[in-house]
Amino acid sequence: MKNLVLVFKLVFCIIFCFSSAFAKAELKTSFFQAEKKQKASQLQTLESPDGSFKMQFRLSDAGIPQYQLYFKNKEVIKLSSLGFDIKNDSKSLKDDFTIIDTESSTFDETWEPVWGEESQIRNHYNELAVILKQKETDRKMIIRFRLFNDGLGFRYEFPQQDFTYFTIKEELTQFAMTGDHTAYWIAGDYDSQEYDYTTSRLSEIRSLHKESISPNASQKQFSPTGVQTALMMKTDDGMYINLHEAALIDYSCMHLNLDDKNMVFQSWLTPDVNGDKGYLQAPTVTPWRTIIVGNNATDILASRMTYNLNEPVAIADTSWITPVKYVGVWWEMITGKSSWAYTDDIPAIQLGKTDYTKLTPNETHGATTEHVKELVDFAALHGFDAVLVEGWNEGWEDWFGQSKDYVFDFVTPYPDFDVEEVHKYAKSKGVKMIMHHETSGSTRNYERHLDEAFQFMNAYDYEAVKTGYVGNILPRGEHHYGQWTVNHYQYVLEKAADYKIMINAHEAVRPTGIARTYPNLIGNESARGTEFQAFGGSKPNHSTILPFTRLIGGPMDYTPGIFEMDISKLNPNNNSHANFTIANQLGLYVVMYSPLQMAADLPENYNKFLDAFQFIKDVPVDWDKSVYLEAEPGDYITTARKDKNSSSWFIGNSNGTRARTSRISLDFLEKGKKYKATIYADAQDAHYKTNPQAYKITTKKVTSKSDLKIFTAPGGGFGISIVEIK
Amino acid sequence: MKNLVLVFKLVFCIIFCFSSAFAKAELKTSFFQAEKKQKASQLQTLESPDGSFKMQFRLSDAGIPQYQLYFKNKEVIKLSSLGFDIKNDSKSLKDDFTIIDTESSTFDETWEPVWGEESQIRNHYNELAVILKQKETDRKMIIRFRLFNDGLGFRYEFPQQDFTYFTIKEELTQFAMTGDHTAYWIAGDYDSQEYDYTTSRLSEIRSLHKESISPNASQKQFSPTGVQTALMMKTDDGMYINLHEAALIDYSCMHLNLDDKNMVFQSWLTPDVNGDKGYLQAPTVTPWRTIIVGNNATDILASRMTYNLNEPVAIADTSWITPVKYVGVWWEMITGKSSWAYTDDIPAIQLGKTDYTKLTPNETHGATTEHVKELVDFAALHGFDAVLVEGWNEGWEDWFGQSKDYVFDFVTPYPDFDVEEVHKYAKSKGVKMIMHHETSGSTRNYERHLDEAFQFMNAYDYEAVKTGYVGNILPRGEHHYGQWTVNHYQYVLEKAADYKIMINAHEAVRPTGIARTYPNLIGNESARGTEFQAFGGSKPNHSTILPFTRLIGGPMDYTPGIFEMDISKLNPNNNSHANFTIANQLGLYVVMYSPLQMAADLPENYNKFLDAFQFIKDVPVDWDKSVYLEAEPGDYITTARKDKNSSSWFIGNSNGTRARTSRISLDFLEKGKKYKATIYADAQDAHYKTNPQAYKITTKKVTSKSDLKIFTAPGGGFGISIVEIK
Repeated sequence: MKNLVLVFKLVFCIIFCFSSAFAKAELKTSFFQAEKKQKASQLQTLESPDGSFKMQFRLSDAGIPQYQLYFKNKEVIKLSSLGFDIKNDSKSLKDDFTIIDTESSTFDETWEPVWGEESQIRNHYNELAVILKQKETDRKMIIRFRLFNDGLGFRYEFPQQDFTYFTIKEELTQFAMTGDHTAYWIAGDYDSQEYDYTTSRLSEIRSLHKESISPNASQKQFSPTGVQTALMMKTDDGMYINLHEAALIDYSCMHLNLDDKNMVFQSWLTPDVNGDKGYLQAPTVTPWRTIIVGNNATDILASRMTYNLNEPVAIADTSWITPVKYVGVWWEMITGKSSWAYTDDIPAIQLGKTDYTKLTPNETHGATTEHVKELVDFAALHGFDAVLVEGWNEGWEDWFGQSKDYVFDFVTPYPDFDVEEVHKYAKSKGVKMIMHHETSGSTRNYERHLDEAFQFMNAYDYEAVKTGYVGNILPRGEHHYGQWTVNHYQYVLEKAADYKIMINAHEAVRPTGIARTYPNLIGNESARGTEFQAFGGSKPNHSTILPFTRLIGGPMDYTPGIFEMDISKLNPNNNSHANFTIANQLGLYVVMYSPLQMAADLPENYNKFLDAFQFIKDVPVDWDKSVYLEAEPGDYITTARKDKNSSSWFIGNSNGTRARTSRISLDFLEKGKKYKATIYADAQDAHYKTNPQAYKITTKKVTSKSDLKIFTAPGGGFGISIVEIK
Repeated sequence: MKNLVLVFKLVFCIIFCFSSAFAKAELKTSFFQAEKKQKASQLQTLESPDGSFKMQFRLSDAGIPQYQLYFKNKEVIKLSSLGFDIKNDSKSLKDDFTIIDTESSTFDETWEPVWGEESQIRNHYNELAVILKQKETDRKMIIRFRLFNDGLGFRYEFPQQDFTYFTIKEELTQFAMTGDHTAYWIAGDYDSQEYDYTTSRLSEIRSLHKESISPNASQKQFSPTGVQTALMMKTDDGMYINLHEAALIDYSCMHLNLDDKNMVFQSWLTPDVNGDKGYLQAPTVTPWRTIIVGNNATDILASRMTYNLNEPVAIADTSWITPVKYVGVWWEMITGKSSWAYTDDIPAIQLGKTDYTKLTPNETHGATTEHVKELVDFAALHGFDAVLVEGWNEGWEDWFGQSKDYVFDFVTPYPDFDVEEVHKYAKSKGVKMIMHHETSGSTRNYERHLDEAFQFMNAYDYEAVKTGYVGNILPRGEHHYGQWTVNHYQYVLEKAADYKIMINAHEAVRPTGIARTYPNLIGNESARGTEFQAFGGSKPNHSTILPFTRLIGGPMDYTPGIFEMDISKLNPNNNSHANFTIANQLGLYVVMYSPLQMAADLPENYNKFLDAFQFIKDVPVDWDKSVYLEAEPGDYITTARKDKNSSSWFIGNSNGTRARTSRISLDFLEKGKKYKATIYADAQDAHYKTNPQAYKITTKKVTSKSDLKIFTAPGGGFGISIVEIK
């Protein structure tokens, strides 16, 4: 090694420091000219373009950066501090600051997402950058605020300076609440978000925390008042507040820890194996911290702030990125009807050494050529774009929970899965195959095989891959949501873009709007998906909360469309019950926006309800515009969306645990046009538990003057297709 | 995620356990037939082919596996226990065993290494496999012993069984010494071996441990009696004992911890970030633990046991693997005369974002096109095969000590290094370029760029790469010698073979003979190299110990050939003195066998001593046979080797701190032939400290009947070329 480098560094430093003293002086006069020409005011104010929001920034007497947020003259965020504790440094980055300059600007543009809830998105904000210097250390830190008409985003920036490398001990961003709000929360966890939501007062989080946690393959909580973002809240006077982050790139995912005496949330980053929270190198920026606010719950659903705070698309040619509706070999394994593994002969296999052709098939393996062809036939018959196949590749016998490094190679099919034949057959039917890469959390192994795996996909026309990260992360000690692993997901996403491959990442970090920049990220799990309905069930109102929380950062591969709620009918050993009605499942294709939508149930179950299945066949996966008709987190959401490729509209509703009648106006329809509405609704006696398959389908001629009144059962919902009559 | 998998595992297990009961019964009768047909004796004995070694294996009353080793009826290893502590298991793998079978065999073959100290290697041993079952747990463990005429190797094996996955808490292999031997040791450390050797009694290790440790960029000791392998020892009655390991693949590197009351060494594996020592999956085997023994120190040097315990070559076509003698842009940076970095303008750079063309060159950058061309000219003029260039690629400004992830991309040259022009120029001169990949310990980053980096090498005809791992390993918390990183080095080595690239890995784990299997591993550092002579100096007898320790596992890129010992002549700010004479440096080209040998000094220093330089030009780097004429660790080594491609012989000597006269017989020369010997020896007044450049060159006609008497100065040595007179 080169020990002497240390010595030379000192020598060079002496030379460098002298020679660059002049350069630095220049830098100061140009960039930080404010220092000389004006004494910047301590109180800085920023307003949103429409004037509804007001943000104040100040330094406390101790030089602590602080901000405060008002919406329509009501306080949303009380005076809250900003800063960092940094490692191995006597001086933290939280006080002793002076304002040496501020910069203000306005931005207004409209951009077109590759896919989305609407075809045009307006990005309109007023910006304030506060340039700070820490007196004692001479360190510079910029806090950049962007105030939109739907909320506030801010981030920390570190310009190029001698203070280059530092390790975050904790980010000290506060969100001080004005009262004991109602929150829709899941426990903060470094490895899992697959929890049912709890609705409670902030003051009740501590007492309900333990029972909010259900077992998972990898999980690690950190505090009895720790919660995850996006965190949805409602104040007693009816204001809706959502806390999250945007543009999580090369940084640790942020959780929130509540001081439940003072109702102050503070950022709690995901640590690495040493307990450190992030390694930064200036020049750099943090992700944006976001506060979306509205007087209606629908305002939160309509917000595009998270995307707007991300960078514009970084992929030159996006023509290959296309929304997908798919079926797959999946629910049958989730329910236990069939298996991912090919054999039960041996307790463990070694890739490349285990000769599968000498082992006995277990008769339960799902991903056989024959069975996949049946799915391809089903997809072709009903107009689905693609078929996902899980358990097609060698390694599933002992893939899980063994801290196994070389768990899959992503290119070697089981003996009973003929990838060439499946490829040819699907192609002949006009159906695409969707690849599946379960990594078992072994990120190094996945990265080692990534090029070959993507080349394999290119060779066999797989355009999208569902990735998975079940179990603890390898390298050991790293977490699903830490900087190291966040960096991995991003690496996979960008490499996939090189190969023109779309990613649907499961068990990965929750999305933060980076699909604006990398729209090949067409899906994420990162929440409790429909699969848990076969693992004992989820709360019936789960899907009335997800659009306010998990979906704030991007679409979810929620895999709706389950028509058989009695799981024991698929697998006698599985007594789970899925807690929703068929009509609810239809509504989710509109309520739970995603450019990637699965019809998750088995063909045999769809064949029993082909009239209801028609809605799934008809519903688009890409939209021209969206109207959020009514919503209350935990209770109901009704959303209308216009197809991107036709004049048709679709409405979806997901209802909570209480029966309810939805009253909606169709005034969003184009005036003067006539439409035929097909309404897929709960029957009057439907109930998620006792009578989930009771629905009725009615049709009706409607115009923009029509109103609809639709009953929704407990755990119910509805779907409506509205097709122009020409 | 797929939680239910856990439930199904239980279900499947019930089915599986029943169905496989018969299969298992069969397995038992076939493989473990001994259990039924015979009650195996507790005491097992194994002899070496020539009868000089005897090994006894037994189980203690508590069922602990134990072995004992004798050489020529003298005890070498006292009764020593074998086994493992395993994690999260109430029952360790160390006692309660029964012998259920034994297998004995004999092996004798001669194989031809791709390169080496001799062109033919005999692999001759008697083998005993003791098949053990742990009574309570039914676990099977095999201990396989191979007894050679030069020592013992043994390893643990875990056949396929239900006991599949386990985590090693510690390997409990003991090496019980018969007395308070003299040892030539460096402190056990998870990250560095770059220490001077200490010669002391075993009982003195504890008191000398602290002072034996010098600073390093990454280092972590674990015990005041911890030492590294290969550990060389000498008993009071003149027996030489060497402890090491062979075939370190997918396992943690073994250190030794001394119980200095009882003089018992026990294995101490390198832990991972959790403190765990290894993740195993049956069927698997551990590396071999080796004990090389002889009554002469030269017996240790002549041993090929470490290679013999490795698997045969795994590369089908090895024609591209060729020994290399090279010069390079390196010593000038090591001494501080020039720099790896291109600029001093900014304290830190960001690859892909920093525009170097806008930065000022620092005037000290070594790897400029112009300067490299000078080296190419020098190489061509003097018949060297290749030129190494360090500091050619972007990223050196802040490469070190920052826990920086994306530190290099391995394909982007600095603005002043024209890779295309250098390539063409070198090619026109018949000189190869050697690539340099410093990783700064960032293993993930290196693996991410590996394919592209190797493709880049292929494109520009680089056939070999020097890799480096300076600083702490990323992923954080892993060590240079842990299983995770061992696995990384192996991954790089095998991928390099795919690209027909030779590897010379610095700061990597010490070699354990795997170059037999992967002969593209043509070099390693893994010890205190010549560079430390420019970092304050090493002990004058350092190179009289390395062949007994570090070189047991494979060749070292020691970079000898320094002719200017006063480093301040290269860099006025560097007051280091290199502790050897010029004649010593010549001798090392023979004493320190390597298929990769550098002439490390600057052309200007060679030009001052062109007559001595002639030896470096003449000496081969691949050999037909080797004769170890005389040796005493710490004092002297004299080795003769016959060129693989001619009838010439070369003799090298490295001498310790005391002046000495070497008396050697040339009876190894072919009888009846006449040779001209050119002797490059220390002048009578030479001294490593005060007069290191005093040498004399004499010539002499010799035959197999000749004897030579050659003076060696303190820190001196000699080199002799013996060319047949035809």
